[in-house]
Amino acid sequence: MTKHSAKRRVLRKQRRLRKHAPRGTPPGTMHADPNAPATSIRIIAFDSERLAEKEIADPEELRDWIGKWGTIWIDVTGLGSIDKIRSLGEVLGLHPLAMEDVVNVHQRAKVDVYRDYLFITSRMIDDCDAMQSEQLSFFLFHGVLLSFQERPGDCWEPVRQRLRTHRGKLRMTASDYLFYALLDSVIDSYFPVMEMLSDHVDLVEEKIERGEAQTPIHEIHRLRGHLLMIRKSIRPHREMINELIRNDSGLISPETRIFFRDCYDHVIQLIEMVDTYRDLTADLRDFYMSAVNHRMNEVMKFLTIMSTIFIPLSFVASVYGMNFEYMPELSWQLGYPFALSIMTTMSIGMLFVFWRRGWIGHRDQAFHDAESR
Amino acid sequence: MTKHSAKRRVLRKQRRLRKHAPRGTPPGTMHADPNAPATSIRIIAFDSERLAEKEIADPEELRDWIGKWGTIWIDVTGLGSIDKIRSLGEVLGLHPLAMEDVVNVHQRAKVDVYRDYLFITSRMIDDCDAMQSEQLSFFLFHGVLLSFQERPGDCWEPVRQRLRTHRGKLRMTASDYLFYALLDSVIDSYFPVMEMLSDHVDLVEEKIERGEAQTPIHEIHRLRGHLLMIRKSIRPHREMINELIRNDSGLISPETRIFFRDCYDHVIQLIEMVDTYRDLTADLRDFYMSAVNHRMNEVMKFLTIMSTIFIPLSFVASVYGMNFEYMPELSWQLGYPFALSIMTTMSIGMLFVFWRRGWIGHRDQAFHDAESR
Amino acid sequence: MTKHSAKRRVLRKQRRLRKHAPRGTPPGTMHADPNAPATSIRIIAFDSERLAEKEIADPEELRDWIGKWGTIWIDVTGLGSIDKIRSLGEVLGLHPLAMEDVVNVHQRAKVDVYRDYLFITSRMIDDCDAMQSEQLSFFLFHGVLLSFQERPGDCWEPVRQRLRTHRGKLRMTASDYLFYALLDSVIDSYFPVMEMLSDHVDLVEEKIERGEAQTPIHEIHRLRGHLLMIRKSIRPHREMINELIRNDSGLISPETRIFFRDCYDHVIQLIEMVDTYRDLTADLRDFYMSAVNHRMNEVMKFLTIMSTIFIPLSFVASVYGMNFEYMPELSWQLGYPFALSIMTTMSIGMLFVFWRRGWIGHRDQAFHDAESR
Amino acid sequence: MTKHSAKRRVLRKQRRLRKHAPRGTPPGTMHADPNAPATSIRIIAFDSERLAEKEIADPEELRDWIGKWGTIWIDVTGLGSIDKIRSLGEVLGLHPLAMEDVVNVHQRAKVDVYRDYLFITSRMIDDCDAMQSEQLSFFLFHGVLLSFQERPGDCWEPVRQRLRTHRGKLRMTASDYLFYALLDSVIDSYFPVMEMLSDHVDLVEEKIERGEAQTPIHEIHRLRGHLLMIRKSIRPHREMINELIRNDSGLISPETRIFFRDCYDHVIQLIEMVDTYRDLTADLRDFYMSAVNHRMNEVMKFLTIMSTIFIPLSFVASVYGMNFEYMPELSWQLGYPFALSIMTTMSIGMLFVFWRRGWIGHRDQAFHDAESR
Amino acid sequence: MTKHSAKRRVLRKQRRLRKHAPRGTPPGTMHADPNAPATSIRIIAFDSERLAEKEIADPEELRDWIGKWGTIWIDVTGLGSIDKIRSLGEVLGLHPLAMEDVVNVHQRAKVDVYRDYLFITSRMIDDCDAMQSEQLSFFLFHGVLLSFQERPGDCWEPVRQRLRTHRGKLRMTASDYLFYALLDSVIDSYFPVMEMLSDHVDLVEEKIERGEAQTPIHEIHRLRGHLLMIRKSIRPHREMINELIRNDSGLISPETRIFFRDCYDHVIQLIEMVDTYRDLTADLRDFYMSAVNHRMNEVMKFLTIMSTIFIPLSFVASVYGMNFEYMPELSWQLGYPFALSIMTTMSIGMLFVFWRRGWIGHRDQAFHDAESR
Repeated sequence: MTKHSAKRRVLRKQRRLRKHAPRGTPPGTMHADPNAPATSIRIIAFDSERLAEKEIADPEELRDWIGKWGTIWIDVTGLGSIDKIRSLGEVLGLHPLAMEDVVNVHQRAKVDVYRDYLFITSRMIDDCDAMQSEQLSFFLFHGVLLSFQERPGDCWEPVRQRLRTHRGKLRMTASDYLFYALLDSVIDSYFPVMEMLSDHVDLVEEKIERGEAQTPIHEIHRLRGHLLMIRKSIRPHREMINELIRNDSGLISPETRIFFRDCYDHVIQLIEMVDTYRDLTADLRDFYMSAVNHRMNEVMKFLTIMSTIFIPLSFVASVYGMNFEYMPELSWQLGYPFALSIMTTMSIGMLFVFWRRGWIGHRDQAFHDAESR
Repeated sequence: MTKHSAKRRVLRKQRRLRKHAPRGTPPGTMHADPNAPATSIRIIAFDSERLAEKEIADPEELRDWIGKWGTIWIDVTGLGSIDKIRSLGEVLGLHPLAMEDVVNVHQRAKVDVYRDYLFITSRMIDDCDAMQSEQLSFFLFHGVLLSFQERPGDCWEPVRQRLRTHRGKLRMTASDYLFYALLDSVIDSYFPVMEMLSDHVDLVEEKIERGEAQTPIHEIHRLRGHLLMIRKSIRPHREMINELIRNDSGLISPETRIFFRDCYDHVIQLIEMVDTYRDLTADLRDFYMSAVNHRMNEVMKFLTIMSTIFIPLSFVASVYGMNFEYMPELSWQLGYPFALSIMTTMSIGMLFVFWRRGWIGHRDQAFHDAESR
Repeated sequence: MTKHSAKRRVLRKQRRLRKHAPRGTPPGTMHADPNAPATSIRIIAFDSERLAEKEIADPEELRDWIGKWGTIWIDVTGLGSIDKIRSLGEVLGLHPLAMEDVVNVHQRAKVDVYRDYLFITSRMIDDCDAMQSEQLSFFLFHGVLLSFQERPGDCWEPVRQRLRTHRGKLRMTASDYLFYALLDSVIDSYFPVMEMLSDHVDLVEEKIERGEAQTPIHEIHRLRGHLLMIRKSIRPHREMINELIRNDSGLISPETRIFFRDCYDHVIQLIEMVDTYRDLTADLRDFYMSAVNHRMNEVMKFLTIMSTIFIPLSFVASVYGMNFEYMPELSWQLGYPFALSIMTTMSIGMLFVFWRRGWIGHRDQAFHDAESR
Repeated sequence: MTKHSAKRRVLRKQRRLRKHAPRGTPPGTMHADPNAPATSIRIIAFDSERLAEKEIADPEELRDWIGKWGTIWIDVTGLGSIDKIRSLGEVLGLHPLAMEDVVNVHQRAKVDVYRDYLFITSRMIDDCDAMQSEQLSFFLFHGVLLSFQERPGDCWEPVRQRLRTHRGKLRMTASDYLFYALLDSVIDSYFPVMEMLSDHVDLVEEKIERGEAQTPIHEIHRLRGHLLMIRKSIRPHREMINELIRNDSGLISPETRIFFRDCYDHVIQLIEMVDTYRDLTADLRDFYMSAVNHRMNEVMKFLTIMSTIFIPLSFVASVYGMNFEYMPELSWQLGYPFALSIMTTMSIGMLFVFWRRGWIGHRDQAFHDAESR
Repeated sequence: MTKHSAKRRVLRKQRRLRKHAPRGTPPGTMHADPNAPATSIRIIAFDSERLAEKEIADPEELRDWIGKWGTIWIDVTGLGSIDKIRSLGEVLGLHPLAMEDVVNVHQRAKVDVYRDYLFITSRMIDDCDAMQSEQLSFFLFHGVLLSFQERPGDCWEPVRQRLRTHRGKLRMTASDYLFYALLDSVIDSYFPVMEMLSDHVDLVEEKIERGEAQTPIHEIHRLRGHLLMIRKSIRPHREMINELIRNDSGLISPETRIFFRDCYDHVIQLIEMVDTYRDLTADLRDFYMSAVNHRMNEVMKFLTIMSTIFIPLSFVASVYGMNFEYMPELSWQLGYPFALSIMTTMSIGMLFVFWRRGWIGHRDQAFHDAESR
């Protein structure tokens, strides 16, 4: 656990450094996180017949592309270079508030409707192990999709492959379907994480049932924390996709709407899974604590029975161990058997009391051995 | 319990193998579960006068049937043969997203409205013991009902019998009523499961009251898990049937709507039963833990009383068991009675303290015996 | 408690026998419970001037009555004779689904709107002690009210008396007001039950405060079970009466609507009472467990203080009880006082440690006696 | 606490006597509580220029007043004289159902709309200490306000003073504003009660933090009960005032509506306070129980350490206290030092084991003393 | 902790002094808190070309300003001088109910719509450490913004700077955007507080994991109290801002509405953070208590094992320590070895029993040492 804890401690420290923007700054101001990776801009432009990919350094180059292709996907990775991002915003005419939300990576999933475009934020689980989530931002225009990722490495490689190989219906369609394909990949990337967690819950449950769990409480606590984090990430997507479906800006075609409905179903499914697992882990914790308590009670009952039987016996023995000169029993011929028989009577009486109260024998399996000993 | 646990462990392993589709695949792609049973297609075609049943191998044969019968029920069992299912989808013109949901058996109950048909998914409790649920999918056309089951074995045999024997109003009516009859069977199949669980809860409660429960915590935990699973299955049906009732596609006639309303009542009743039993089992667990705690306290009080009475007595005895040469009491004529009377005084004083604090005697039944001993 | 438990066990067994209808039967099929009492049909027909009462054996007789009286109340008791009930349904033209719900006595309170009549189900608490609830079903026509009870014995005798004695406005009004009068009696019959439970809760609380409670946990658990059962019965009435108020079928006149609004207020009041008592009993259980825990801690602290004071003392005594030939202290003139003074010092030191940690003395009342002893 | 408990017991007995109306009585029947104080009727009639006050004995006298003054406030105190109240109802033409609700003092706050008037019930906290609530009923006509109180003594004296002294805008306005002024006083009378409770919660928290709390569990339990009772009283006011604001009967003028909105804010504020304090007291109870548990653990650990160190030592000592004739160690020259060194070794070993497990020393502050002892 | 507690005790006392207005006063009456700081009024008037700042003593001076500037911000600090505030209200024609809410500093965030202006209240976290919140009130007119603060010291200095330096779009815009800028600062001032709390939660979690936490229960309790307080402050802002966005009074321009939408997102984000942290701390408390319980069980098991092994051994030893004259074993040649072998047998038997029950050895890591000792 120490290795795991160490990793988490590092992440916590990072989180503490990457704070919210200083208060009092005018709205629409962008603050770069000094640790953010440098920004790279990659264009994939295509229509049903041709496809071009290019990495551009200066956002001004974009002006040469727009309007000349069916669909242009501007894929921005890394939020470290504020100037590049700002210039990109100017080229495409983006609202400062939206630009601020792009670099302030603490947004919930949401849709903001502007006149010419939709601004959408989403969250992706980045690293299954470290349970780190990453903000994704999209600007959806007619014919242009602009996406921002916090870090290199994403779940969109298969989408790019499908574009290049002309596989699926992706190439024939407009920017809204491309956006759907990307969002769908993001939502689908939650499933393996949930499955990993569900396997983990199963494992812990199995271990507790077999009595082999070493630190189930730590594990359950960590699982619950992960579930909380996933819930916080995924839940706003419900509302977000719902708004996309009902949106009447004309940016999303009726055909694509059917696909978003499918996406919506997946989000609901994920939310229900998370809620079910929150309930399950709560049950599991209660179950474990009850089991522990039960075993504890067995232990205590055993101690009580042993102690209360032997304490009076030892007392009798120590009485006859006193060194008084005038103790008549000591010189009796049958003093020793007499003392032993007192002790036997006492222990039988005590066992009878225990039996009457149901602490040993018929009612509880746990003390059969103790009794028959 | 080990037998039961073994069964669950096998199921868990199966679940772990049957994963969600690999991420990054284009939407609408079907992934066969390699362990799924092979697909068999069975047609029951009927109108008020005639009825024909046939098992077909090639979905293309369907074209000979459609349009020639009042109602055709295409009953597909087993999702192992992706090609057959895909070809079926092409014959009937089904949307790829719906087809994907048919084979991806993790759907919640829902209705998706397409132009010519409704796509409905539902879940059935398969195996009462193993608490395994199975996905059912329906495509409802005018005059055609297409149903998919995961595995052979269902709760629809009585419906088939009623079709064959012309019993009930089933033969005279259209595909929407047939669909209602099937859905009603599915919903009704939850009741025996709920009754089994409710009997189990009663039994556990009775056992706890009689003090005979061996591992009530394990049983309650398992019952709660089952209830959670049933809730997850049944709850989405509420919304689903509600959408069927309000649906205005013309596929569901006003007469059948009354029947769906009845179905809706059953679902609400089931949901309330599950919620009530979740509450009841939570109460039961708290009750059991309280009872255990209470007994534990009795045990501890007994130990404390015994120990604190005898510990000072033993101390006095061991003092007079010391071997000092110059201990005046040892040579007193009345040394022994003197020591015994000290001990008696101490124990009476101690009992008085206990009585004053209400640990023995008047306030709590539990120690009457201890006192009168 | 055993008597009470025995009663409950019998009820549970009955419940287990009286199962849900076997699955797979066509909708609208009626299944008689073999233990249900035989059906008797009693007619009370009246208008503002005359009133007639008759027990009829054959539902066909009804045809002679209908249309000839202002209002006819057909009061059916006992659901054992399926044929009679079916024939009654045919005479009045009732929908099979509604008839099925009449005999399947597990319905929640609800309103189903049919063309000529309303079908309403409600639940009544039958036996305050056994906490058994009974289903009531009503068919409300213009001029005819048909009511079904599970068992003889009801809360409607006062209504019948008012009809016979012409007391109140009952005789002057139509079937909807009669239905209101019956439903009002049913709702009002919950109040004495709630009052009985509330008195019980008060009593248990008083007993716990006085420390006289013997098995409060059992009682609280039973009370919570009763409250859950009442909540399950009463809660659907809210929605049901709300639908009656908003119903625009013309069967319920605007004047009667005001009375249903009053009924609605009573239901809300009952639901709030049940919820408050659920919260109260949860608080009570927590309170009791906390009190038990607190007393337990006192007991344990006492044990610890006694043990840890005497254990070292006894050790010293047993050291000087060893029989070694060469133990210099034994032959000292002041060996005995020396040993005693070691013991005194140890116990004072120990008491000082306890006092420093706040286990005895100033901080906690509980050990004042122990210290000053 | 006994004094407090005694008071509560008396109240409970009263509550048990003052039951709900006997079941089966016709709706609209008034049942007098035999313990209710006698009814007195007091009229305050005013317009902007004149004001008259009179106590009347016979409700018929009212006919001389109505229509001759701008606003008439009929202030009825005590519900003991059913005849007077009934005659009052006849003079003003009140609906029997509303009259029944006036004397059946278990109503929740609500608004019932009748043709000529509004019927409003509200609840007031009567006695801060006893936590007794009183029902207030109002009939709001154009130009007439009829109010009923259960008992003499209210929070309206300042309103009467303002009427008499012409202070505030009260005299210039209609019956709706007078009603607002009264309702506002009622709502505001909850604030001192909440403040008293909040101070009590603060005090208990402070005491627990200082470790001075004697019976915090009893106090928290009582506070939670009070909060539940207040919540039950205040919560329905939200809906009630909301209905007053949206009411379009013309009885409430748009100018007064602004004032009701202010009243609504106060109710929301009260409900949030109650909910916050319910959460706070739950936290407080958990906190106290955790603290108790923690101290308990310390106590137990101390006992364990002391016992497990001395138990083996005592055993060694008692071995060499045996009286066998042939025990070689007894006659060794160094037998005594040998035994002592065995004991020392054992205790050092035991302390090492404890230290390794973190029960003493570095990890937990609690045992620093024990170690350094 | 004592320092911290002392600070809280002082705050509590202050809170107890600063009560709600005495009951019975007419609505719209202003009550000054005697401890409130004196009122100072500061005007910042500007349009896109010029800016003037002035501190005025007499509200009448305002008449010289209004209408002569694009936007006027009247910034009132301190609520001690009721006369000044009243006269300000008269100059601007404010409603008495709104004025009352300004000085009665217990309001929830809300919007009240009047004919010419909006009245808005909000709450700001004042002092991160003491968790004290301050009420802010705003009157938003066309061209005039009036703001009230309880105490000097706010989070608006950056806004003033931006006004003076002509930075941002602030100077070019109307009073609604100025109001947005101020409200945005208030909302943003919650983020550092939440981050401080989240860091604290992380720290406590880390400490508990490392076993270094001294009084985690106190810390968690305090954190939960802070979260409750923040939730109470922030939650009403959701509704408040929502009403601002939907408000159609023309006081808020469509361009500013986009900015309020951003503000709304921040509030939702804050509410979700608070809820998540409430859940997290509850989990943390359960986790800690479980960990404590688990360690306690280990301790108890150790005690039980040690005691039950040595108790019978000591008994045997004390039996042979009795001083009877006729005890045959004492004079046996092999009596001593005989006694020792009895003891060895007993302890081996006892260890076997423990092992069989799984208290030592294979099942639980915790007792490996104990066993191998």
